[in-house]
Amino acid sequence: MHPLASRFGSVLRHRRELAGLSQEVLAGLAGVHRNYVGLLERGLRMPSILVVSQLASALKTQMSELLAEVEQEGADRSKT
Amino acid sequence: MHPLASRFGSVLRHRRELAGLSQEVLAGLAGVHRNYVGLLERGLRMPSILVVSQLASALKTQMSELLAEVEQEGADRSKT
Repeated sequence: MHPLASRFGSVLRHRRELAGLSQEVLAGLAGVHRNYVGLLERGLRMPSILVVSQLASALKTQMSELLAEVEQEGADRSKT
Repeated sequence: MHPLASRFGSVLRHRRELAGLSQEVLAGLAGVHRNYVGLLERGLRMPSILVVSQLASALKTQMSELLAEVEQEGADRSKT
């Protein structure tokens, strides 16, 4: 599991839960397969920017904002 | 050619030229194949976030910043 995929997955899961969406509903809104959302959240897939932009749009945010959170998470981890 | 790939390609080319790097040098710094940089710049490939983070690092910036420029380019285009 690549650390970047793992960080992306945990940000995605956190944002999805904040939005009160199930994996299935988020997948439907973003136009991706439900299983794929699960794989992403577990850090088992490295998404393309197209997938990130679709997920961001479904979560009413922007891909740059999602990825800034991913970077922040990386920076926080490297401090500890 | 997907509009997102096309916008990413033009931001990448612009940033690479600002940095005064050839495609070959950027590819070497980012650890990707030189031909792949050319394909990305022409909007013919949709990069993963791993590739974007490697390119951003080689360009001494962050992926969220590169992608914010891509989003800005999309917003500017949709206004015209």
